Amino acid sequence: MNAPPNIADHLVLFMPSGKRGRFPKGTTVLDAARQLGVYVESVCGGRATCGRCQIEVQEGHFAKHKISSSKDSISAIGPKEARYAEKRALPVGRRLSCSATIEGDLVVDVPQDAIVNAQVVRKDADQRVIERYPAVQLCYVEVDEPDMHKPLGDLDRLKAALREDWGFNRLEADAHLLSEVQSILRQGKWAVTAAIHHDDEGDAARIIALWPGLKNEAYGIACDIGSTTIAMHMVSLLSGRVVASAGASNPQIRFGEDLMSRVSYVMMNPDGRQAMTKAVRQEVGKLVDKVATEGGVDRSDILDAVFVGNPIMHHLFLGIDPTELGGAPFALAVSGAVKARAGDLRLNLNPGARLYMLPCIAGHVGADAAAVTLSEGPHRQDEMMLIVDVGTNAEIVLGNRKRVVTASSPTGPAFEGAEISSGQRAAPGAIERVRIDRETLEPRFRIIGSELWSDEPGFAEAIAATGVSGICGSGIIEVIAEMYLSGIVSEDGVIDGAMAAKSPRVFSEGRTFSYLLHDGEPRIAVTQNDVRAIQLAKAALYAGIKLLMEKQGVETVDTIRFAGAFGSFIDPTYAMTLGLIPDCELDKVSAVGNAAGTGARMALLNRNHRREIEETVRRIEKIETALEPRFQQHFVYAMALPNKVDPYPKLAGQVTLPPRKVLSDGGTEGPRRRSREERAARRRR
Amino acid sequence: MNAPPNIADHLVLFMPSGKRGRFPKGTTVLDAARQLGVYVESVCGGRATCGRCQIEVQEGHFAKHKISSSKDSISAIGPKEARYAEKRALPVGRRLSCSATIEGDLVVDVPQDAIVNAQVVRKDADQRVIERYPAVQLCYVEVDEPDMHKPLGDLDRLKAALREDWGFNRLEADAHLLSEVQSILRQGKWAVTAAIHHDDEGDAARIIALWPGLKNEAYGIACDIGSTTIAMHMVSLLSGRVVASAGASNPQIRFGEDLMSRVSYVMMNPDGRQAMTKAVRQEVGKLVDKVATEGGVDRSDILDAVFVGNPIMHHLFLGIDPTELGGAPFALAVSGAVKARAGDLRLNLNPGARLYMLPCIAGHVGADAAAVTLSEGPHRQDEMMLIVDVGTNAEIVLGNRKRVVTASSPTGPAFEGAEISSGQRAAPGAIERVRIDRETLEPRFRIIGSELWSDEPGFAEAIAATGVSGICGSGIIEVIAEMYLSGIVSEDGVIDGAMAAKSPRVFSEGRTFSYLLHDGEPRIAVTQNDVRAIQLAKAALYAGIKLLMEKQGVETVDTIRFAGAFGSFIDPTYAMTLGLIPDCELDKVSAVGNAAGTGARMALLNRNHRREIEETVRRIEKIETALEPRFQQHFVYAMALPNKVDPYPKLAGQVTLPPRKVLSDGGTEGPRRRSREERAARRRR
Repeated sequence: MNAPPNIADHLVLFMPSGKRGRFPKGTTVLDAARQLGVYVESVCGGRATCGRCQIEVQEGHFAKHKISSSKDSISAIGPKEARYAEKRALPVGRRLSCSATIEGDLVVDVPQDAIVNAQVVRKDADQRVIERYPAVQLCYVEVDEPDMHKPLGDLDRLKAALREDWGFNRLEADAHLLSEVQSILRQGKWAVTAAIHHDDEGDAARIIALWPGLKNEAYGIACDIGSTTIAMHMVSLLSGRVVASAGASNPQIRFGEDLMSRVSYVMMNPDGRQAMTKAVRQEVGKLVDKVATEGGVDRSDILDAVFVGNPIMHHLFLGIDPTELGGAPFALAVSGAVKARAGDLRLNLNPGARLYMLPCIAGHVGADAAAVTLSEGPHRQDEMMLIVDVGTNAEIVLGNRKRVVTASSPTGPAFEGAEISSGQRAAPGAIERVRIDRETLEPRFRIIGSELWSDEPGFAEAIAATGVSGICGSGIIEVIAEMYLSGIVSEDGVIDGAMAAKSPRVFSEGRTFSYLLHDGEPRIAVTQNDVRAIQLAKAALYAGIKLLMEKQGVETVDTIRFAGAFGSFIDPTYAMTLGLIPDCELDKVSAVGNAAGTGARMALLNRNHRREIEETVRRIEKIETALEPRFQQHFVYAMALPNKVDPYPKLAGQVTLPPRKVLSDGGTEGPRRRSREERAARRRR
Repeated sequence: MNAPPNIADHLVLFMPSGKRGRFPKGTTVLDAARQLGVYVESVCGGRATCGRCQIEVQEGHFAKHKISSSKDSISAIGPKEARYAEKRALPVGRRLSCSATIEGDLVVDVPQDAIVNAQVVRKDADQRVIERYPAVQLCYVEVDEPDMHKPLGDLDRLKAALREDWGFNRLEADAHLLSEVQSILRQGKWAVTAAIHHDDEGDAARIIALWPGLKNEAYGIACDIGSTTIAMHMVSLLSGRVVASAGASNPQIRFGEDLMSRVSYVMMNPDGRQAMTKAVRQEVGKLVDKVATEGGVDRSDILDAVFVGNPIMHHLFLGIDPTELGGAPFALAVSGAVKARAGDLRLNLNPGARLYMLPCIAGHVGADAAAVTLSEGPHRQDEMMLIVDVGTNAEIVLGNRKRVVTASSPTGPAFEGAEISSGQRAAPGAIERVRIDRETLEPRFRIIGSELWSDEPGFAEAIAATGVSGICGSGIIEVIAEMYLSGIVSEDGVIDGAMAAKSPRVFSEGRTFSYLLHDGEPRIAVTQNDVRAIQLAKAALYAGIKLLMEKQGVETVDTIRFAGAFGSFIDPTYAMTLGLIPDCELDKVSAVGNAAGTGARMALLNRNHRREIEETVRRIEKIETALEPRFQQHFVYAMALPNKVDPYPKLAGQVTLPPRKVLSDGGTEGPRRRSREERAARRRR
């Protein structure tokens, strides 16, 4: 039966990418996708055995796209596809794109979650679907048997098959496979699955692993090495699903609590660098064990790994001395993306597993900030987006499609509860939410571990196990903001001694006053020094943000993203009330959780995202706050609540800000003292 | 002083490449060379400090090239060049091409032996000058210091400098350098020399090693792993000079004397493969020590290594089970060129050192044969060249620019003295040269270790230390050829019992006769079985050659090259007299020594030679002698001396061949028995 040779081609639209093209009747949907550059997974290379290439036909008339699609526009299920559907339970509505052919105009949906094996399903904080185009790909091939007349080697015939079936024209093989290729080919009766690493388009692709027969699953890990915690996801490279996640404390804490103390440790101890490198790599190894066990996966099935971290964590993980990062000019040993083999770092994954680290942006703005940028994508959109990742250093990114600038600000550890008299890490028992009655100045609060407010019935019983142990970072933000909103603290950050008359919770301690938050054991009060510590931290953060806004030439930002653990717990209203961040619509301020981890997953699952962040980091302009003459002035203005000079009209629309009140440090109302700069600034407004 | 902008450009001709082009006055000779693709070494990148870019100006009128060149056509020695000349003693007539500029028409000679440091000078068997374009190159750069405003990492600024000064646009770094780059840059005060590995044009270049300051020497090794001996050269990658050479027995001999017994050992012993791999790698390691010590070179200055060997040596060195090579279809695990890191094979060179193995041609025709092909270059010329490498298997290559064919023939070990009653390896005491008086049938001979013939005065004293211990391969060829030429052996290879009447040296042993070569202790005779063993070996070799000649459609060959140790000692006249090789002008037959080692050196010093042999091997047609129906017939004809059917007119013009004499095995003249094929063949002539 000969079809007429010149039948009109059919229009095919792929969703969600929106790519479209015309194809002759009878073209497989997989071929059409490939020709359009739509990534549809396939391991078996069109043999209808791996089930990875599932698609769904969308039915109906799509006016926007001027296309009508129906189930009749795709071929009926043939015998090979039926065999797969029977053996592996193909979900209703799903088709194998390698077998289904185009018979009319079609709208095709490429689901990003094709489930082939019954996997442990995890609910993850970030359920974002990442379009896949991984650097490591599984390719099933059937290799010619040896032939005396054509004496190509086993490996060479394998390469020929991969070239023929998968289009790899330049292909090398890892040395460790040389001694294995022979037996694997024979074990698989000349049918094998090769793992191909092809990250940079310009380089030869490499065979990094090989299995007899059809190998239908492979994994990668995405890992964020923080100074405090290490978080790891194990992800299927075939479906993109997070199969297991785990976290652990960074064992380097025993060498130094914060980054600078770890750098000092290296400077003071000849073997300090080695010891910390070993410690972090061992912990990463344990986490790999953990996610592999949880996911029921063999370590040797892990073929790719992406790591992010701040510059010091990045260097220590790579075995680089971080001493240079301890002082100006904060010289990174390597800033570009690092491509290596997992074995180079003695990570025990598959012997051919690869490793990728995102680029660092600057000496204080690391691969973690790059990952956050990749995740949130200021460079992908038009709005002016501010990203703030608060830690001991705050990393700040501000930009849009046109231009992205970045800086880090030395906020110090106050936001983490350090330097605060009753401060503590976020842990059960820590006060995390605070409200103060504007009239009585009586507080109520919530602690981590209980949903009840302290004035609700059953609170005492609910917290019996932990008690009230201190104030964590988000708690200290809230209590000082509430103290400001209820007039206990002045615009200049002074606890107002006059309020002692209104409530005994305001009490004098020497020359300054404190606010009693919890009259128990321990007694928890907010002191003048506590307010000063938070003022210093938030002024540093805001001054950095302000510098970047000046560089961008903007007075306001459109959206604000809080990255990191601190950002997840902080209430944007209070952050804005205290002036950590500039004025913004409150519903445009959001916490994005472990965005660094999400960025790492993106780089793991799609090599185009690697090129994207490499290119973006090359373009990002880095501002060194310490070198900017205006930093000091911004800092001084930002000491005020919320700010001496910058208005907060959007915040004022949502929150009743107190009338201006300026107090001297002793907590008494004094003559309004303004610096010359302040007066000049006010005149300019 | 402004030169007129449009002055006529000058013609510059580079020798020996013959490349030419026109360049503006004032262009440095080095720039001109680069623009024409003439490889002139330079480490310092034009700073006149490394002295590697030396050239010589040729004076006179070169009619053939229509160019007149004089010393006035090049700039006078400037201050930088003068400083180098003073410090390092630039030879008279030499100029530094990075400093010398073009001032008129020039003929420039690029010497391939620029000596910079006082090196040990070795006289090597093969003094061939190899044009250099090595895969590993030293590049001196001055790197920007760290700058807070442009926070590129140390490695990234190094890459930028290498891109800027040396044109490497895509550049990666080996992982082991990540932790070193920081301190090396600071140690060198931001001036460093990088070793760049750039083998395949399409791939990114890689930084594989780094030194502070100017590093002006680097080495490579070229190694031929034979079944019996391993030979290694250490070569300067900068000048191409062989700095040291060493050889050793292959320690695998203890597992099996010949190739097949080693394959059997692997088949019989579970750890046999590992043991043999370890043995050969250890021996290679010892040889590296030896050449490094002899050359006064640190192992860590060895950056590249090229290995060749027959397929079984190749596989065992790479850690591949050679069992498949023991039987049909003789499947190689890998036939293409192998690129790896020296560390992948646990070779203790520089941590970044690379390794390259030439491709194998077929299951019996290995990387050694590829190296011989590369060295002799049949594919580079028009004459029909025959290359014969005699060992237990003889590898045969026949071809010219148009087409190259190859085969291996199972000659067995007779040519190496095995299977011969008084045979022995080539060692002091072994008879290597023989002459037999045509009248008296009295022999005279020479042994390895003495220049005297046995009938010369002082012979007995000269050989007292070793005595006469046996006959080596070249000796057995000569004695049988002489026996044939003096009528002792018939065309059919029968020792003629009738000659016993002429000389007591011909004597009966049971049903056959022998010839007494040396009446001493031990008594050395050539038996009928010895003659049969050589006949079988040479018939196998010749039949293989004949098959290839048929494939090429030629009746004669233009040149013959004997490769390998055996070939170096064999006298072409006798080889032709016995019919090992086809008829040919005797002065077109030559021994080329360790051509495999030369080929390895070529691949080490010029990456274009790697591409050349990879491409050539892909094109070479492989003939499997066992599968060719005509092999048997050629073999039968070739049992005769020199051949039953093929004429030797050129040989007959130089040597008096005996009249035809056909004897039965008993050594008595019988009726001339000719097979039908023989008669048919004779009719065709």
